[in-house]
Amino acid sequence: MRIANLDGRAVLVGPGSRVFDIATRSGGRFGPGPRHVLEHWAEFRAWSGAAELSGGEPLDPARLRAPVENPRQVFAVGMNYAGHAAEVGAPIPPVPSVFTKYRSCLTGPFCPVELVDGRCDWEVEVVVVIGAYAHRVPAERGWEHVAALTIGQDISERELQTAGASPQFSLGKSFPTFGPLGPWLVAADSLPQRDSLELGCSLNGEPVQHATTADLIFPVPELVARLSATVPLLPGDLIFTGTPSGVGAGRTPPRFLRPGDVVESWVDGIGRMRNVCSAPVVPDSLEPEELELRG
Amino acid sequence: MRIANLDGRAVLVGPGSRVFDIATRSGGRFGPGPRHVLEHWAEFRAWSGAAELSGGEPLDPARLRAPVENPRQVFAVGMNYAGHAAEVGAPIPPVPSVFTKYRSCLTGPFCPVELVDGRCDWEVEVVVVIGAYAHRVPAERGWEHVAALTIGQDISERELQTAGASPQFSLGKSFPTFGPLGPWLVAADSLPQRDSLELGCSLNGEPVQHATTADLIFPVPELVARLSATVPLLPGDLIFTGTPSGVGAGRTPPRFLRPGDVVESWVDGIGRMRNVCSAPVVPDSLEPEELELRG
Repeated sequence: MRIANLDGRAVLVGPGSRVFDIATRSGGRFGPGPRHVLEHWAEFRAWSGAAELSGGEPLDPARLRAPVENPRQVFAVGMNYAGHAAEVGAPIPPVPSVFTKYRSCLTGPFCPVELVDGRCDWEVEVVVVIGAYAHRVPAERGWEHVAALTIGQDISERELQTAGASPQFSLGKSFPTFGPLGPWLVAADSLPQRDSLELGCSLNGEPVQHATTADLIFPVPELVARLSATVPLLPGDLIFTGTPSGVGAGRTPPRFLRPGDVVESWVDGIGRMRNVCSAPVVPDSLEPEELELRG
Repeated sequence: MRIANLDGRAVLVGPGSRVFDIATRSGGRFGPGPRHVLEHWAEFRAWSGAAELSGGEPLDPARLRAPVENPRQVFAVGMNYAGHAAEVGAPIPPVPSVFTKYRSCLTGPFCPVELVDGRCDWEVEVVVVIGAYAHRVPAERGWEHVAALTIGQDISERELQTAGASPQFSLGKSFPTFGPLGPWLVAADSLPQRDSLELGCSLNGEPVQHATTADLIFPVPELVARLSATVPLLPGDLIFTGTPSGVGAGRTPPRFLRPGDVVESWVDGIGRMRNVCSAPVVPDSLEPEELELRG
């Protein structure tokens, strides 16, 4: 089952890429936005399994937004693949290294990534979407609190990310459009290979990242356990689970994103995103008032 | 002007600590929660300045919640006073060191702080509440985007905060109840001394922190500028501006919070919070695998 965010409305994506408005089809019981669907996940799953869907509208990818665009909490895990830790010269972390991506950075699966001055890099990730409150949950029950999986890009500006004596990663990973998400949510229990998902990223058609979540240092159920040991996880919360090796900062010589670059991100059983990089906005020509209001 | 959160309702706190429900008094124009008031801050300020208030109900401090309990984004700044950086052996940061406190950690100004195993520490801070969208705002106009100030405690478990080779602070600062906030919002433009606010913290009646925001390395308008250069700031967003020297980790010998400790936090012109520390929850009835996962 696939759930997308079309212009802010939660839609089911059916065969042949026909989409069905969830609020309309459920008589207002679920929706209109995806977060409400996630807050009633068990009931929604029961309803959607029995729903008879015909008709629908064709899917316009350009209208897709981040499938969850207003999460209460966003967790992101650094150095969660040994190969990535090695390529950036970091040791294997003894506990998950957790920062946030501020929610205003989230963008759609086919939207542009607006580069900024500095060294902007790619990081394909599997993203977990919480479907049931989780506090102090053992790893054995971790999957029970996961509604869905989706694809994320943890676009990162490396200079700001690593500034200072004890660098805090969150800010350099949160410029607007630095969090492409999508193209849709896929129910985790519909993915038999959910513990060994292949994922990858290509840059202008050249594969640059390729791995499997079987190699996660802290796999999904363990992340749910470790995070929920500290923070109660709420429906709609996102966990960016970490990126494998192959980022630009790990290459010799390093290679960072340039205007016009096409970043494609895919996860087996979920789908594919495509984001084109645009040049940094040069604010010379803007009035001060307009500068403040740019999104 | 003081705005508190009483059982989830935004209330004006008037002379003699009488409170007036904002949604009722405004005929539903503002509220019911504080975030809605902040999203219509300019109109609310105009209305509240002209509102005639009489009657009201007495204020029951035990019913006060965090004055903003559902912020979209929470920013917290590390090492923003030279004295605190020195006491923990950190250099002066070249740029603000920014992490988050996950919103589920926020609690009321007179609510208990539930300690966890480890080394729990206090950090009194002035907290900025955003009242108008801010993106790429120059420091000269920083205050224009601030609705109010309040008091925060950035309670921190030092072991988790500093775990790993490149410690990320957010998780160790986000256990439930680790973010007391309040007792109310005070409109920033009603504080003539807003650039030099005295703040302090006492532990069981003994003063342990005392400073002025005039000593902030990155003062409030500069923080609005620096943060908004990266992340658009949204109404209701919180900025924990940093703590001055005097935390438990900086003492010789170190002194961490114990059950029964009373933490009082005050800011000149705003008020005072009082939080009593309670013992870590002992999950006697839980299975062993759940015990291992306790934070």
